[in-house]
Amino acid sequence: MISVLIVGKGNVGTHLYNVFLKVDNIKVTQINSRKLKNIPTTDVTIIAVSDDAIADVSSKIKNPFVVHTSGACSINELKNPTSKGVFYMLQTFSKEKKVNFNEVPFCLEAENKNDKQLLKEIANLIGQKIYSINSDQRKALHVAAVFVNNFTNHMYKIGNDLCNEHLVPFEILQPLIKETALKIETLAPEKAQTGPAIRNDKKTIKNHLDLLNKEKQKIYKIITKSIQNGN
Amino acid sequence: MISVLIVGKGNVGTHLYNVFLKVDNIKVTQINSRKLKNIPTTDVTIIAVSDDAIADVSSKIKNPFVVHTSGACSINELKNPTSKGVFYMLQTFSKEKKVNFNEVPFCLEAENKNDKQLLKEIANLIGQKIYSINSDQRKALHVAAVFVNNFTNHMYKIGNDLCNEHLVPFEILQPLIKETALKIETLAPEKAQTGPAIRNDKKTIKNHLDLLNKEKQKIYKIITKSIQNGN
Repeated sequence: MISVLIVGKGNVGTHLYNVFLKVDNIKVTQINSRKLKNIPTTDVTIIAVSDDAIADVSSKIKNPFVVHTSGACSINELKNPTSKGVFYMLQTFSKEKKVNFNEVPFCLEAENKNDKQLLKEIANLIGQKIYSINSDQRKALHVAAVFVNNFTNHMYKIGNDLCNEHLVPFEILQPLIKETALKIETLAPEKAQTGPAIRNDKKTIKNHLDLLNKEKQKIYKIITKSIQNGN
Repeated sequence: MISVLIVGKGNVGTHLYNVFLKVDNIKVTQINSRKLKNIPTTDVTIIAVSDDAIADVSSKIKNPFVVHTSGACSINELKNPTSKGVFYMLQTFSKEKKVNFNEVPFCLEAENKNDKQLLKEIANLIGQKIYSINSDQRKALHVAAVFVNNFTNHMYKIGNDLCNEHLVPFEILQPLIKETALKIETLAPEKAQTGPAIRNDKKTIKNHLDLLNKEKQKIYKIITKSIQNGN
């Protein structure tokens, strides 16, 4: 039996609490990060709070092994006097939506082998995609996630804007969006590239720019150039 | 029985030819666009050639109803002396991969009701997502497709670069990429946005910029600004 304390009642903390509840080999407790009195002693303490609160919250915990769940923060953001680690799940969590933990990549870091092994055991009880990722790698991964998630979503938003402006239903683009995401499961993104930028089709590029406002033109030009330069 | 001639033996022409072959109510013939002698007379002639060749190829065809398959070109790019139309399928076609035509949006345009009806009938025999899209709308849709397909793929490419540079397997990002694409089937992209840009989390944005080369910094900054400006 592994005892786990979750500190924080946000999206990540609550999803984790609910999935741990279903596992026989885990005894889980959840507390509010703003009420840190009578903290139960557990094998692992998972701090699932906002990045800015990690240092303060962890400094108040004396449990033997404390981890955070942040993609953006180094392991050294933790200020507990005991062992430290990271239990980062690279996925978007929203309150309404059920999470399929079998699809969630667990990115684990710890200061020693035993602690790492314990995190792996826990991750294995709720999921199956498990990676050892140190703080430098996680930082890069977090930036990469901004590109493939936030910035990609903004490309969708611009597509949606253009559809709205010209009274075209956005749903027409859905199959293409899905296909684009699935294509790179079997083909490297560099090899999957098509379109006027990679073909250097100047006539089409000019036609496209004529249709865009200044801010969208800037984005179109800079990404087109980056596709052509291959970097 | 509807007779269809496909002019062009590229990806689009060949996929169309193969799917029409399976339909009882369609009699299909395919010819090479560079060998325009003895052109059979058919109800519909579908020119599936590169954008630059549409004018020249269509000028040589006297069949009653000629359509092209290009997202980037106006209906007026056709130079046949007879009726004109457009049969644009908004999807990426690659030679190796099978196409599920039930998932393909057909964007149809014609000069009169009868011709439009004929195109709808044909599209209905091989697919189910059928839209009337005029040349102005199709132009906007084509630009939108560049954002959600080519530019999104470039975001994946940058994510892949960052993973390679820091020895992180790119597959870790796959579930997030898929989730990002599926999320907007139920949520408008504007409402689906998360991350440091929309939160205006300056500390994280600075950390991210420190990790990027100059060209990626430019892209990061301009998209972050666009997310924050909401346009």
